[in-house]
Amino acid sequence: MDIRPELDLNSDVPLYRQLGGYLQTLIGNGDLLPGDRLPPTRELAGQLGLNRTTVSAAYELLEGDGLIKGSVGRGSFVCGAPQRETETVNWSRALTPSVATPMGSSRPGLINFSASRPSEKLFPVKEFRECCEEVLRSDRLRSLLQLGSPGGYEPLRAFLLRRSGLARETDDILITNGCQQAVDLLRRALVRPGVKVALEEPVYPGLRNLFLEGGAELIGLQMTPEGVDLYSLRQALEAGAKVIVLTPSFQNPTGATIPAAARKLILSLTRAAGAIVIENDIYSELAYAGGELPRLKSLDPNVILLGSFSKIAFPGMRCGWIIAPKPVIARATELKQLADLHTDQLSQAFLLQFAESGPLEAHQAKMIAAGKERLRAVEQAARKHLSACKFTLPNGGMNLWLDLPDGLDASALRGLAQQAGVDYLPGRYFSVSRPLDSGLRLSFAGLEPNEIRRGIELLGGVIGNAGVPREEASRPTLAMV
Amino acid sequence: MDIRPELDLNSDVPLYRQLGGYLQTLIGNGDLLPGDRLPPTRELAGQLGLNRTTVSAAYELLEGDGLIKGSVGRGSFVCGAPQRETETVNWSRALTPSVATPMGSSRPGLINFSASRPSEKLFPVKEFRECCEEVLRSDRLRSLLQLGSPGGYEPLRAFLLRRSGLARETDDILITNGCQQAVDLLRRALVRPGVKVALEEPVYPGLRNLFLEGGAELIGLQMTPEGVDLYSLRQALEAGAKVIVLTPSFQNPTGATIPAAARKLILSLTRAAGAIVIENDIYSELAYAGGELPRLKSLDPNVILLGSFSKIAFPGMRCGWIIAPKPVIARATELKQLADLHTDQLSQAFLLQFAESGPLEAHQAKMIAAGKERLRAVEQAARKHLSACKFTLPNGGMNLWLDLPDGLDASALRGLAQQAGVDYLPGRYFSVSRPLDSGLRLSFAGLEPNEIRRGIELLGGVIGNAGVPREEASRPTLAMV
Repeated sequence: MDIRPELDLNSDVPLYRQLGGYLQTLIGNGDLLPGDRLPPTRELAGQLGLNRTTVSAAYELLEGDGLIKGSVGRGSFVCGAPQRETETVNWSRALTPSVATPMGSSRPGLINFSASRPSEKLFPVKEFRECCEEVLRSDRLRSLLQLGSPGGYEPLRAFLLRRSGLARETDDILITNGCQQAVDLLRRALVRPGVKVALEEPVYPGLRNLFLEGGAELIGLQMTPEGVDLYSLRQALEAGAKVIVLTPSFQNPTGATIPAAARKLILSLTRAAGAIVIENDIYSELAYAGGELPRLKSLDPNVILLGSFSKIAFPGMRCGWIIAPKPVIARATELKQLADLHTDQLSQAFLLQFAESGPLEAHQAKMIAAGKERLRAVEQAARKHLSACKFTLPNGGMNLWLDLPDGLDASALRGLAQQAGVDYLPGRYFSVSRPLDSGLRLSFAGLEPNEIRRGIELLGGVIGNAGVPREEASRPTLAMV
Repeated sequence: MDIRPELDLNSDVPLYRQLGGYLQTLIGNGDLLPGDRLPPTRELAGQLGLNRTTVSAAYELLEGDGLIKGSVGRGSFVCGAPQRETETVNWSRALTPSVATPMGSSRPGLINFSASRPSEKLFPVKEFRECCEEVLRSDRLRSLLQLGSPGGYEPLRAFLLRRSGLARETDDILITNGCQQAVDLLRRALVRPGVKVALEEPVYPGLRNLFLEGGAELIGLQMTPEGVDLYSLRQALEAGAKVIVLTPSFQNPTGATIPAAARKLILSLTRAAGAIVIENDIYSELAYAGGELPRLKSLDPNVILLGSFSKIAFPGMRCGWIIAPKPVIARATELKQLADLHTDQLSQAFLLQFAESGPLEAHQAKMIAAGKERLRAVEQAARKHLSACKFTLPNGGMNLWLDLPDGLDASALRGLAQQAGVDYLPGRYFSVSRPLDSGLRLSFAGLEPNEIRRGIELLGGVIGNAGVPREEASRPTLAMV
């Protein structure tokens, strides 16, 4: 067949590309069939008045596409069937290794103690809706829908700095998508691969996995009913831990709280070692008992403070913050811009309206009252049905840590518990360096008091049936705060 | 003074900690003063009926806190003034190195061509408000405020898969905080340090910086008016590029679009090399001229497609997505959970309502009409005032790339431009491996047509005054698509 491309000498598209595209069309249309020989480059060049290298380049393109095949001394031929659409990428080799914790699955209908989150039944939906509507009706809406600032919505930043009551002139704030992103950004700002990071053990897995993904070397800090063990912390610092992440109040998963005096001692140790302390402060406002405790940030200006309303208000709205020395915030803000430009502006404005105009405070009081009631249900039921286990009741927050009687494995028991109608997370999900097989977490805040009582009764039955005589068990103890 | 602590032998708090806390209180209250000598450990142990190591441990705690100081042979003494709250962390050493691009600052009042975003004057605020109010009034509100799913809000996922028209059974979707987070998660899923990543050059800096932060080795792909140069791509693949990021339509910053035939050639090359292609598809729906082009994802199932409504609707709402083979989505979803648990649920529900119930389509038509008008203003003004420069008008999107006459440096010229009342981003911000000093980006979509005309006239004046005779300049050309 005749090869007569319409080539445009004035086009920005190089001639070889124009010619290649033309030949490709011929092949695609079936004007050139598999096995057909293309004219030799010299011949076609002469015929079209082109430089021979132009024709060679066009052929090369087609060859790269698998449309033709050249053979030395024989010329170029149209290939057989076009390459099929196939999965040519080996994804399992291409993807970075997973650091996620497979949580197992829960079944519907269970009394589920496995999520550390508030009950949605308590959400003040009406008040929140009114706050949203006020923002939506305001003149701000247009600019809220426009590109925002990586550091966050300015009025919210100012409000949160004021509300914290502890930001110094040397501090600044960054709004993040919840506390989880705050940790992610700080990990990127502070942890090079191989850096030693000390975490409470047991620890919230989302925290551990983030540092693992960053290539950190993790050190588990032993937990006591009064929070992190000081000897364990000292050992970690001596071993070279550079970043220490602590949840001083109502830690997830143990519920432990560090007393005031120990807070000072902890900071004197970290200060002496030149280590960086990240204070995860998301549970402290859910205090059901005990006096007010100073936040680490108020005791040491170097501390990096993480906050969020996810535990006292709405976890579905992703809004948290970091208050820290300016150099930290500057670097974290750069990383925030890299990570997702900025946090959703509408959510920031809604939360500000909800917090500033009053409903947050009222809701928090309601959440504390509800938490007290739930903790009481936990206490009564646990004393009655879990006397074979060791536990320390928390003074706030959402979680109770249970140590099963010797010989029982919480992962193995979980299947039986689910069959009995109750679910929880086994201890091993929360480990850093030790197995924690005998531990488990009961997250009680999302359940109704009667569900809590029934769930703990069921769990006690499962543990009892697992065959450990009750008289061997130790007595439950109260937290010392 | 007497040392008479009340120690609780049944407490979970170790005795040394109880004693340490008690001594700390004495020091804090001034009952023990700087210079006071503490009783020798043996003596105090006997006095309190404690093991001597318990007392030593308590003293050690206080010493760690800087409250007392031991001296061999002399005993332990209360220290002087308590350690001051000081900045003891060397932040510049502690923080990871910055990869951000310092963009310089613009001044208010300038005609500002420096942001690739839509004009907020065009936002359909009334229609959007109505969509939000519908969601807020619905029964879904309560569950939207509760913790959501890392993969995204299920109804939005289903809608976007349908709307894309190209998802296969082997594909899945992940909702992200805009396209920027999509790239971040893919970088974490696909790029180990040292992996070679090929990017168009010039390229959007947020893309380049993300891969740099991940330790990738970057290869710049040369751009032509028809998108990435195929020879340059082939060279990158031969050099071992494993991940290729392309913006086939209306690329930022060049505005270039890859023609249909070249799209097929590109994929045949990447397929043969076993490389992974990420298709950044955020501008393609803003087409002002030229026919419809197949997305790379429709031509090859292995392609990873990134989408967002930020360019056709509201950049302040952080909502984008990835459509890709299931193994990629599974890993990216794990990373999403690590990064920030999930995307804000209200925003997802608002956008779904806006897209599904009609206003998005109407708004997109309005945005295309507005874009055409703005592009026309660019064309007229550029032909008149920028004839000394080389440029190719785009067929869509938000950006025009300008090459200044020989010898002119866009960074150096920027100060003069700002003085004259106009601003832009110099080419060097967009470089991967070459300086691009003579280039600059004009982002026109956020401006009114009369601002565009006036801004380009001012810019032309600045370039003219910089002293390059106009007759030396090349002619402007139109893109060939």
